[in-house]
Amino acid sequence: MSDVQTLVTRARAGDARSVARLISLVEDASPALREAMAALLPYGGHATVIGLTGAPGVGKSTTTSAFVTALRQRDKRVGILAVDPSSPFSGGALLGDRVRMQDHALDRNVYIRSMASRGHLGGLSWSTPQALRVLDAAGCDVVLVETVGVGQSEVEVAGLADTTVVLLAPGMGDAIQAAKAGILEVGDVYVVNKADREGADATVRELRHMLTLGERREPGEWRPPIIRTVASRGEGIDEVMEALDKHHGWLAETGELRRRRHRRAADEIEAIAVTALRERMGDPRRGAALDDLADRVVDAELDPYAAADLLLEGLTA
Amino acid sequence: MSDVQTLVTRARAGDARSVARLISLVEDASPALREAMAALLPYGGHATVIGLTGAPGVGKSTTTSAFVTALRQRDKRVGILAVDPSSPFSGGALLGDRVRMQDHALDRNVYIRSMASRGHLGGLSWSTPQALRVLDAAGCDVVLVETVGVGQSEVEVAGLADTTVVLLAPGMGDAIQAAKAGILEVGDVYVVNKADREGADATVRELRHMLTLGERREPGEWRPPIIRTVASRGEGIDEVMEALDKHHGWLAETGELRRRRHRRAADEIEAIAVTALRERMGDPRRGAALDDLADRVVDAELDPYAAADLLLEGLTA
Repeated sequence: MSDVQTLVTRARAGDARSVARLISLVEDASPALREAMAALLPYGGHATVIGLTGAPGVGKSTTTSAFVTALRQRDKRVGILAVDPSSPFSGGALLGDRVRMQDHALDRNVYIRSMASRGHLGGLSWSTPQALRVLDAAGCDVVLVETVGVGQSEVEVAGLADTTVVLLAPGMGDAIQAAKAGILEVGDVYVVNKADREGADATVRELRHMLTLGERREPGEWRPPIIRTVASRGEGIDEVMEALDKHHGWLAETGELRRRRHRRAADEIEAIAVTALRERMGDPRRGAALDDLADRVVDAELDPYAAADLLLEGLTA
Repeated sequence: MSDVQTLVTRARAGDARSVARLISLVEDASPALREAMAALLPYGGHATVIGLTGAPGVGKSTTTSAFVTALRQRDKRVGILAVDPSSPFSGGALLGDRVRMQDHALDRNVYIRSMASRGHLGGLSWSTPQALRVLDAAGCDVVLVETVGVGQSEVEVAGLADTTVVLLAPGMGDAIQAAKAGILEVGDVYVVNKADREGADATVRELRHMLTLGERREPGEWRPPIIRTVASRGEGIDEVMEALDKHHGWLAETGELRRRRHRRAADEIEAIAVTALRERMGDPRRGAALDDLADRVVDAELDPYAAADLLLEGLTA
């Protein structure tokens, strides 16, 4: 049995170190990934993927931790993928936040992993789905993908999840900011955390107003609920779990679950193909290599479109 | 003469509406772009590209406006490209900020343009270099690319510019945040704006400390200066202009200017090629199309790497 096969067998049997090593293959963009993904294939498609996003300071880690507690009470095996798209550093970037997760650090049925995606060849869209495949095949019932809501990452995360939870807090990352960042289009469930603080009512009201504003819903469409929580005390978490179950039921019933997973697979395939092509582009053995073409563009001998044509001819020859 | 040729001729003669229409071709990813880029080619390579980035609230628009005033006093023709990578909306997203630029709105030698890059097929790396080509060919001596410092956009902008200016302000987006966001690796010139406010000394000190921390500079390498400004009153702007000139001299002298422009051209060619490939991927006439492959991955018949192989075979046949 190859090393990769051994890792997969052990990960399937619940060995946390083998799960970690498989995810490291993803982070390192290892050549062994191809074999790993083929070996994991028969065991996938079981996990529910929940995306969790929100601006810094809304209480994402605390909420994630409260979700994990609730899911463990329901006897679910849980994977957590904390993606920090704003950090160029690997692993340690979210360490401060991860400390809050230490309640679950010794639980054999909880896998916790931070991933930095910046600097990665294919970025978030390349690495996260493959890490999800590992956690799915390792027997996780639910995988939580937590990401800092900056730039376009939250919209990318929504593309990866079955259900996307958008987190807000009174006074921070208010509804208008959220609208500007585009996250009011991606939430399936909205959570106003720190609901015991001043301004919570206003945030809920504002959010409801903004969600209704853009609404042109057909009968049978999903209406994202708004739920108040105080995650640090576990308040409101059961309501969120109910909303997640309800959304999952709706997804399954309407065929939307299949559509979302289809789209996710298409994005994943595309990201792998594009990454493979980018690698070939720099390869001087393949006709007109990028380096020469860039010289000719700088010297105004070639426009960038003509250069791209020549590059593609070389690739597809 | 084709429509595109007419636009290029008029843009070259200083017609602002033709410049705007050419940039709209970029925003719309128009098929006419190929012809436009070929027609613009002989007129490029003249403009100096200055990137300007910083967290929200540090005074980017005010600083840009002060830079423009200083550059106009030096009789430079100026283009401004305000890129908002966090906004899914086109054009209007930065309108509030643009109001502060109205001092220059009637100046024939200043072109101002906002661009939203999210949702764009190729994103910032696809659209911005092409918009730069338009402004360059239209006779701009300097193009300022202003972007909100969120997520990875500032690092992308640094890849587009000859010189990158990183803006900070006391108490906001402090040096540690900047370090976390990775912008301490990309600045050629650091500006601490609102330097009349409390905490300015501490910000400068902290910034200097952090810049020195990572320093392993060879003799002859560029040491990024830290300059204090109060952009709203024009204070310190002349010093920034001097630093920019000095950096440009260093770039030219060391061959780094050529290297940066080469890298920029390579990124641009690659982005155009990848975008073209992505378009082909969805095309059902080309062998195994993405849609079918995604179905087979969801059904666990194929792993994503095998699917990507089949996709590429179809593309390169």
